[in-house]
Amino acid sequence: MEAILSAGTDPTRANSADATALPSSLELPALFEQSLRDFFASRRDMVENIGGGYETAVATLESFVLRGGKRVRPAFAWTGWLGAGGDPQGTDGDSVLRACTALELVQACALVHDDIIDASTTRRGFPTVHVEFENQHRGNNWSGDGAHFGEAVAILLGDLALAWADDMMRESGIDSDAAARVSPVWSAMRTEVLGGQFLDISNEARGDETVESAMRVNRYKTAAYTIERPLHLGAALYGADAALIDAYRKFGTDIGIAFQLRDDLLGVFGDPSVTGKPSGDDLRTGKRTTLFAAALDRADATDPAAAQLLRDGIGTDLTDSEVDTLRIAITDLGAVADAEARIAALVESAGSALESSSATPEAKIRLTDMAIAATSRTY
Amino acid sequence: MEAILSAGTDPTRANSADATALPSSLELPALFEQSLRDFFASRRDMVENIGGGYETAVATLESFVLRGGKRVRPAFAWTGWLGAGGDPQGTDGDSVLRACTALELVQACALVHDDIIDASTTRRGFPTVHVEFENQHRGNNWSGDGAHFGEAVAILLGDLALAWADDMMRESGIDSDAAARVSPVWSAMRTEVLGGQFLDISNEARGDETVESAMRVNRYKTAAYTIERPLHLGAALYGADAALIDAYRKFGTDIGIAFQLRDDLLGVFGDPSVTGKPSGDDLRTGKRTTLFAAALDRADATDPAAAQLLRDGIGTDLTDSEVDTLRIAITDLGAVADAEARIAALVESAGSALESSSATPEAKIRLTDMAIAATSRTY
Repeated sequence: MEAILSAGTDPTRANSADATALPSSLELPALFEQSLRDFFASRRDMVENIGGGYETAVATLESFVLRGGKRVRPAFAWTGWLGAGGDPQGTDGDSVLRACTALELVQACALVHDDIIDASTTRRGFPTVHVEFENQHRGNNWSGDGAHFGEAVAILLGDLALAWADDMMRESGIDSDAAARVSPVWSAMRTEVLGGQFLDISNEARGDETVESAMRVNRYKTAAYTIERPLHLGAALYGADAALIDAYRKFGTDIGIAFQLRDDLLGVFGDPSVTGKPSGDDLRTGKRTTLFAAALDRADATDPAAAQLLRDGIGTDLTDSEVDTLRIAITDLGAVADAEARIAALVESAGSALESSSATPEAKIRLTDMAIAATSRTY
Repeated sequence: MEAILSAGTDPTRANSADATALPSSLELPALFEQSLRDFFASRRDMVENIGGGYETAVATLESFVLRGGKRVRPAFAWTGWLGAGGDPQGTDGDSVLRACTALELVQACALVHDDIIDASTTRRGFPTVHVEFENQHRGNNWSGDGAHFGEAVAILLGDLALAWADDMMRESGIDSDAAARVSPVWSAMRTEVLGGQFLDISNEARGDETVESAMRVNRYKTAAYTIERPLHLGAALYGADAALIDAYRKFGTDIGIAFQLRDDLLGVFGDPSVTGKPSGDDLRTGKRTTLFAAALDRADATDPAAAQLLRDGIGTDLTDSEVDTLRIAITDLGAVADAEARIAALVESAGSALESSSATPEAKIRLTDMAIAATSRTY
């Protein structure tokens, strides 16, 4: 309760008691995007000095970064800072905004490199970065292999985004105490997400079917990276006490896992017009989700024919009617009801952790809304 | 002359006047390697917590990093710091050593990703990282495409090395003033090397034959990254004045370009038993070096038949006798004499810049030795 109690007596926070002076959750993405534009502008001279076409490649990266995305990670970080007692009108408001926005450049690297790893051809309705450069190569009749050229450029631009994420954090203007508090969180977050990505491709290659392995990927590739560590980072920016950090991390891990469980359900049952992906996409691409692992686990124990059906179908070029058959099997095995129950329990436990924490009332409302948006049934 | 004059009156530097108390250039690599081992050890708990095989993948990265390499970049950074007045026995000696060593993790990322980009199968007598994981995939009969799996893991491990380079720099223990001075150099170095790598593949794809384009690659991919910026970083660690930084950068750029020109000569004329690469390797792989660009430039102006010979031969599967024919053409066109003259002029101008600088006498001797080693004819 410390932060709430002290908030009213801290003269520097006078404005933040007035919620209308705060950017709303809907206004945040535009602030992060302005921060990103400013950062790219700060790099322009250096890149143009190098020249030779580098400036055009970097412009492609900038378009990719600014083209869309929900800015979920900076939003959780910023709201975590707000909930610890941060004041957007305070002297560190702009620095904190920049520090939170740096998460989007880590994410740019993750997406650009993931799209190579997953051999994805489109993202957000546009060609992925490696495909864009492959197309450029083909369109210009350049020599060598176009696909390899596209991947090579995308590897380098992802690296650049990762290096610039650090630059943006380091140059954000946060004071040296805040930087020291953020440092281990920033380090853990990147080591974890790269671990989660590694486990994801490694489990798939090894044909690891266990729920435990799928959960480990959820934990590190999604939950820690998307919610837990951003909130932790926001708390560290402010200098929150250990109790609030623990509450944020509990909330973030639970909501992060629930978010992934929801995403797994959408990957099998989602409406293509809502998800933007083909119907039953995860089944066709052979993604080893916890939903699929749980269904298989149940089938192995009770229904060998269903287990056979699932194993034969996953990762193959399924017709819509075959997708329906698998959906019915997964539902009948109880895996959907189980996932819904787990999501509900996680949202509940996350809510308790947040409610009993010292986060400000305004942040509690925002984080609860963000949690609902991330975990609700939308199909 | 400031640093030299003040050195004698600074009691904290009493030991450094005694050159025998300093690690010699030959002893430096072992110090950097111990720093790397300590850093990997500091990450072990976090990586083991993530588990699931991540620890084995990270161990592969550690072996790769420790397996060899001349540690040229940290050596230039450390010697730059020494030359500005740094004292290895001083309180910041260990921190500076760690900060300089962080360059090796940037280099690990560059090598791992470059080996994917160049489709190289071996490095330092071992399989490249992507090939090592491809072999693991094949050996275990895992599902999916082994080559793609190997590249995916190598992309992620390169990213990890890049993220950890930042961690190592940030956690080096250098004080906040030193960190603030280093920040723009660290940023420029990474933006430049990624630019140089981009220009390299882009020039090759576009069939850009100009000397200017090849020189731009040399400048950013090699000279700035390998010598100029490491020296600059060392100077920034100490807090050297602008005059010494300018001298270092002039020295570093000149020696860096001369080093690349020497490497270009070795790539065509080098003895395989010395270079570890096949005879005439650059001609066979089609590398667009300044040597080749200069030869072509001269041929276009004076000898159309030689130009045809060069264009027909480059990037093809040449026999040893065809390599000899191209070597003779390049030599007869005067491109070798020209390169030797340019190397000599660059070494000369670098030497002048260093000699008239305020670098300590000990550092001048070391940097001169390092410059000679980097640019001398060894074939």
